[in-house]
Amino acid sequence: MISRVGVGVIGFGTVGTGVARILLENAALIRRRVGVPIELVRIADLDVTRDRGVNLPPGILVNDAKLVLADPGVDIVVELIGGYDFAKRIIVEAIEAGKHVVTANKALLALHGEELFAAAARKGVDLGFEASVGGGIPVIRALTEGLAANAIQSIYGIINGTSNYILSRMTNEGHGFAETLAEAQRAGYAEADPTFDVAGTDSAHKLAVLANLAFGTPINFKELYTEGITHITQHDIAYAQEFGFAIKLLGIAKMVEGEIEARVHPTMLPSDSPLAKIQGVYNAIQLIGDAVGDVVLFGRGAGDMAAGSAVVSDIISSARNLLKGGAGRVPPASFQQDQRRPLRMRPMEEIHSLYYLRFMVLDRPGVLAQIAGALGRCGISISSMLQKGRRAGQTVPIVIKTHTAQERAVQTALREIDRMAFMSEPTTLIRIEGQDE
Amino acid sequence: MISRVGVGVIGFGTVGTGVARILLENAALIRRRVGVPIELVRIADLDVTRDRGVNLPPGILVNDAKLVLADPGVDIVVELIGGYDFAKRIIVEAIEAGKHVVTANKALLALHGEELFAAAARKGVDLGFEASVGGGIPVIRALTEGLAANAIQSIYGIINGTSNYILSRMTNEGHGFAETLAEAQRAGYAEADPTFDVAGTDSAHKLAVLANLAFGTPINFKELYTEGITHITQHDIAYAQEFGFAIKLLGIAKMVEGEIEARVHPTMLPSDSPLAKIQGVYNAIQLIGDAVGDVVLFGRGAGDMAAGSAVVSDIISSARNLLKGGAGRVPPASFQQDQRRPLRMRPMEEIHSLYYLRFMVLDRPGVLAQIAGALGRCGISISSMLQKGRRAGQTVPIVIKTHTAQERAVQTALREIDRMAFMSEPTTLIRIEGQDE
Repeated sequence: MISRVGVGVIGFGTVGTGVARILLENAALIRRRVGVPIELVRIADLDVTRDRGVNLPPGILVNDAKLVLADPGVDIVVELIGGYDFAKRIIVEAIEAGKHVVTANKALLALHGEELFAAAARKGVDLGFEASVGGGIPVIRALTEGLAANAIQSIYGIINGTSNYILSRMTNEGHGFAETLAEAQRAGYAEADPTFDVAGTDSAHKLAVLANLAFGTPINFKELYTEGITHITQHDIAYAQEFGFAIKLLGIAKMVEGEIEARVHPTMLPSDSPLAKIQGVYNAIQLIGDAVGDVVLFGRGAGDMAAGSAVVSDIISSARNLLKGGAGRVPPASFQQDQRRPLRMRPMEEIHSLYYLRFMVLDRPGVLAQIAGALGRCGISISSMLQKGRRAGQTVPIVIKTHTAQERAVQTALREIDRMAFMSEPTTLIRIEGQDE
Repeated sequence: MISRVGVGVIGFGTVGTGVARILLENAALIRRRVGVPIELVRIADLDVTRDRGVNLPPGILVNDAKLVLADPGVDIVVELIGGYDFAKRIIVEAIEAGKHVVTANKALLALHGEELFAAAARKGVDLGFEASVGGGIPVIRALTEGLAANAIQSIYGIINGTSNYILSRMTNEGHGFAETLAEAQRAGYAEADPTFDVAGTDSAHKLAVLANLAFGTPINFKELYTEGITHITQHDIAYAQEFGFAIKLLGIAKMVEGEIEARVHPTMLPSDSPLAKIQGVYNAIQLIGDAVGDVVLFGRGAGDMAAGSAVVSDIISSARNLLKGGAGRVPPASFQQDQRRPLRMRPMEEIHSLYYLRFMVLDRPGVLAQIAGALGRCGISISSMLQKGRRAGQTVPIVIKTHTAQERAVQTALREIDRMAFMSEPTTLIRIEGQDE
């Protein structure tokens, strides 16, 4: 009989602090659920002096990750240092030592997930990463367990709180991107260097993890189309509202004719759709399965306690497996390792979508005819058009919403249009989801 | 090595049909996830002739539940006949035979859950009931696994699709309850006898299940306050909107000072709160945990395929346990059976809430003073008041929103007010949640 389960945490930053707090403060509750105590045995961090506001039992904080890995009392290793090389080494070493591993490292999973999945499956240990996507929202478990009966058809996710905060504020307050970003930085909702968040990279990491689990296929992260929100203007937000849309930075993954579409970009969604209503730093993920229809999960996408909740849920799951011998019952990549299929990732130019196009043109006769002509020659039909505030001889926006078109055709048309003499800047393109023809 | 997992289904109605379809149509996918085939070995139903539109393999449909229970090829028994006595006998027999059990029977769980939980825990088998609440929404798993690190503080659920459909239609179309119910019946969204749904009983069953798992305590169903939506009028919906609220039939469970509040009643919610926006037959459950904050899950609350998705997720979970030896790794009631605590269920009269009160009064001077006086004597303070359309000598509504008050005080005041000569009908009371003072 196992009488306790020992946890070693590597990385005592924001999430590590949340994990420690939960394991200490909710120890009695967790024991009532699991049956034996889950003990925080070791935490390693280079900084062993900073006060994180958590009362650790004496002696457990060490400055060397090796002391966690080597501790025979550690059954479950939690990697929370982030980054690639060292984090990966820790995880692989822990797996090889037969320990269960929990990580929140989406970047590592997106780029080196295959290697880690294979190592964990080979060794028959758990690799938990609920905290890697959507903070405290149990979306990984929804994909691997709750919706396991379904062929997942598509995923739509607001999975970066910073971007959603900025877009929400731009929409509600009417300020521009730069100003809103600065305000978000002052409020602590954006990093000093926000590139990862606003350029879509963080969302793309998370989408790669979700798509991998949903479709049972390795995702080549480099093929995942990623576009951020830095070019979104008040113009676009206002026109979106006029068309009945909200603009969200979405991670989108779909199974289309046996191929995978996976892309991150600003997206117009009907204002009354569930994801359009998600405000501020909240995350939300819509999963569409062939049996269940659509299920939406939302909650706080970040923060020490929300992410800590997810990490500790993985710890509890592995502890339950340790106690009952069910380790590896859910394969790390949701599908059995030998049952995963390399599926073609559809290049961006092959996707079909509805498009919002904003042309900034010199207001003179014949302009619309030339734009419409170029679109028509590429087989793109227009479903609506807006032109407001005529100012002869000056720059004005023409906004067009298309019927379903192929990306390649749209890009070809835009290359032609953007060369036209009356165009004062390159066309702004925003893809539309959730609306039928 | 186990080379297959056998499933026997008892009850070939709506959900049974969905389960059979999923097991047959997604067999290859499920095998890729689980590692071995999950085979539908037997289905029992009294009616073995009706065409359910599913192509069952020959010979598996039988007319006697005993043939399912006695079949040595059945590892997992799925109870989908509903009701109490026979369903309970089936479940207990299956557990005693060492089989894992899956059920969607919320009524049985609400009334006899303790006995079933104890039997399953004693025998070390799984008792899955994801389909009992919220159709395909993985909310049971969220409570038992995804949020297992949290002390759950409160649960708010729209967990009856029929009621939500009716209230949504009443709000959007402006028709009364009776007319909307008739329309819902014609559209197939309400049963011929809708009592269970519109009187709140079905919601109460589901709330009992959720509260039990969330708080680790047996719930005495008889103590659960239940009020339906049959008395909601267009007046109330219009006033709610004027105050910035929507009316939803909510299941509410809270841990308050070590006691449990659990109640089902029409509730006014701020229009911009997540649950207020849930329309039609969708279900949504908001779970608030001490670490994670609030998480909302929503999706289709009913239907053969949505409920089937949940049933099959439980089958997959038990199959994974069978294969890896992890049976019983999550105790049926989420907490270890010997770690559950009987907690006092707070009687309705002890709860605190904000209240909406609609008084139908003869319009004459002094009426408001008398109402306000009675409220004041009971220690209830008024936060806002509306009186529209004065018609001297006729019946007009006076609508009052209170600050936080105790239910007992409100009921005392209403008993006094309802006896006043100018009152033309008993006061309508609707509790308000999600708004601070």
